[in-house]
Amino acid sequence: MTAPLVAPLFDRVAIIGIGLIGSSLARVIRRDSPATHITACARRAETLEAVRRLKIADDTTDDAAAAVKNADLVVLATPLSAYAAIAAQIAPALKSGAIVTDVGSVKEAAIRDIAASLPKGVHFVPGHPVAGTEHSGPEAGFAEMFADRWCILTPPPDTDPAAVAKITALWRLARMKIVQMPAEHHDRVLAVTSHLPHLIAYTIVGTATELGQDLQSEVVAYSAGGFRDFTRIAASDPVMWRDIFLANSEAVLELLQRFSEDLTALQRAIRRGDGDTLHDWFTRTRAIRRSIIEAKQA
Amino acid sequence: MTAPLVAPLFDRVAIIGIGLIGSSLARVIRRDSPATHITACARRAETLEAVRRLKIADDTTDDAAAAVKNADLVVLATPLSAYAAIAAQIAPALKSGAIVTDVGSVKEAAIRDIAASLPKGVHFVPGHPVAGTEHSGPEAGFAEMFADRWCILTPPPDTDPAAVAKITALWRLARMKIVQMPAEHHDRVLAVTSHLPHLIAYTIVGTATELGQDLQSEVVAYSAGGFRDFTRIAASDPVMWRDIFLANSEAVLELLQRFSEDLTALQRAIRRGDGDTLHDWFTRTRAIRRSIIEAKQA
Repeated sequence: MTAPLVAPLFDRVAIIGIGLIGSSLARVIRRDSPATHITACARRAETLEAVRRLKIADDTTDDAAAAVKNADLVVLATPLSAYAAIAAQIAPALKSGAIVTDVGSVKEAAIRDIAASLPKGVHFVPGHPVAGTEHSGPEAGFAEMFADRWCILTPPPDTDPAAVAKITALWRLARMKIVQMPAEHHDRVLAVTSHLPHLIAYTIVGTATELGQDLQSEVVAYSAGGFRDFTRIAASDPVMWRDIFLANSEAVLELLQRFSEDLTALQRAIRRGDGDTLHDWFTRTRAIRRSIIEAKQA
Repeated sequence: MTAPLVAPLFDRVAIIGIGLIGSSLARVIRRDSPATHITACARRAETLEAVRRLKIADDTTDDAAAAVKNADLVVLATPLSAYAAIAAQIAPALKSGAIVTDVGSVKEAAIRDIAASLPKGVHFVPGHPVAGTEHSGPEAGFAEMFADRWCILTPPPDTDPAAVAKITALWRLARMKIVQMPAEHHDRVLAVTSHLPHLIAYTIVGTATELGQDLQSEVVAYSAGGFRDFTRIAASDPVMWRDIFLANSEAVLELLQRFSEDLTALQRAIRRGDGDTLHDWFTRTRAIRRSIIEAKQA
């Protein structure tokens, strides 16, 4: 192996949970920092077998404590509900100066479940790469998934700036745009942009599955624009999303309340044949799409 | 001009309303049946000017009765709320044996508003090409928009089979898959696959616009998968969608009732921390996505 021109960002990385996000990050590190040693940790033997087949890690193990030994960077990429147990398990094995980060979609819960367990001298930088597809597992990952998307870091005020800088550099390898904000604020923004839309999509697709069998098969066959988009969203990983709703329940429930009020108002307009209310509403929503396109996110 | 090898399907076609769907159909006819004479009719001078600039019609007029004179085929492609008035206006000008069709998303209302006005000897074949984008106007159309999508025809039982065959042949030019079903059934299926998803998308994007200004700009900036898909849906033409909800209010309101019940159940599960209910629901919705992919609609 030839010596790299610059030292790798991290010599040894442990990725705990190697599904869509974890395996995509492993591919980024393989591509852009080939000298970095990657250990992949997962509970299931099939997952580890897939990782070996895909050659996206140097080592595989189902033992999180063993995985993090000597690691400079530990990335938690499991569902949120596993965080507390994993943090407790890896804490004694972490080396001093190690950086721990995560990729979870709810940041206050991540901080609560991870930070308390970690020993002094270990730096925790909570992160959320806002990227993904409706597919899951290590086979579904790809290095380009993160490109041009936002990565939101939510380090508490006392976090070591050097550790934040290294996590920033990591996600820049993945071609992400990096922004920092408080965890509580992140959770409110994502409740709107991601959590409520997913809940609604899950609901509507579920409602459709409960229709009579004959109608249902036609719903599948003639699935038009709207519904098809919803089914894609509602095909996302069930465990990950269960955890997100439980972890961000406060922000999601508050928003759901507003949503239900708005839906009731539109329902009432339809029942009364009040076309002006509908037209005004639909014109307003068109404008927000334009803002998004102008913000180059579309 | 060289003589076509086979006679065109229609010698003279009038398209009343030349937006996304009407202009896309005009492009199909231009491409595959260049000998057919196309008259485009629209109320607004800018629309007619755009049609002339795009060269997708031979004639343009704002007078629907003049447009249909001598036409073998008349295609209504306006918002649903204009149907009754246009039908009344064109009825005296239609030639005997002419075929009238439409492209509207609600078929019982289309039949109610059009069929009664038409003179004997004119054939009405209600149709719904299930295709589109969130854009509108004649510039937004393209001939390939219909390819491999379903076109649902809902001819009442006494409709002339030859007329149905000609409309079938028309949409086959556009590379659509054709199916027939009763209008009432169409309206129930589309309420699920298209109308309710649009209403929900309009609602959620509207809910987001009412958030505080600072949060709103971040919602736009960090717009993730879910919300972005919704904003695209919620950017669809406001007049067209107002008319759809009013015309199919019964089926939409019934479905909305079921949806609200389901949403309340999930809301309750989140509030109680009942992860099993969420996980079961999300697993079930994943299955319907698979059926759609297997049905080759995804």
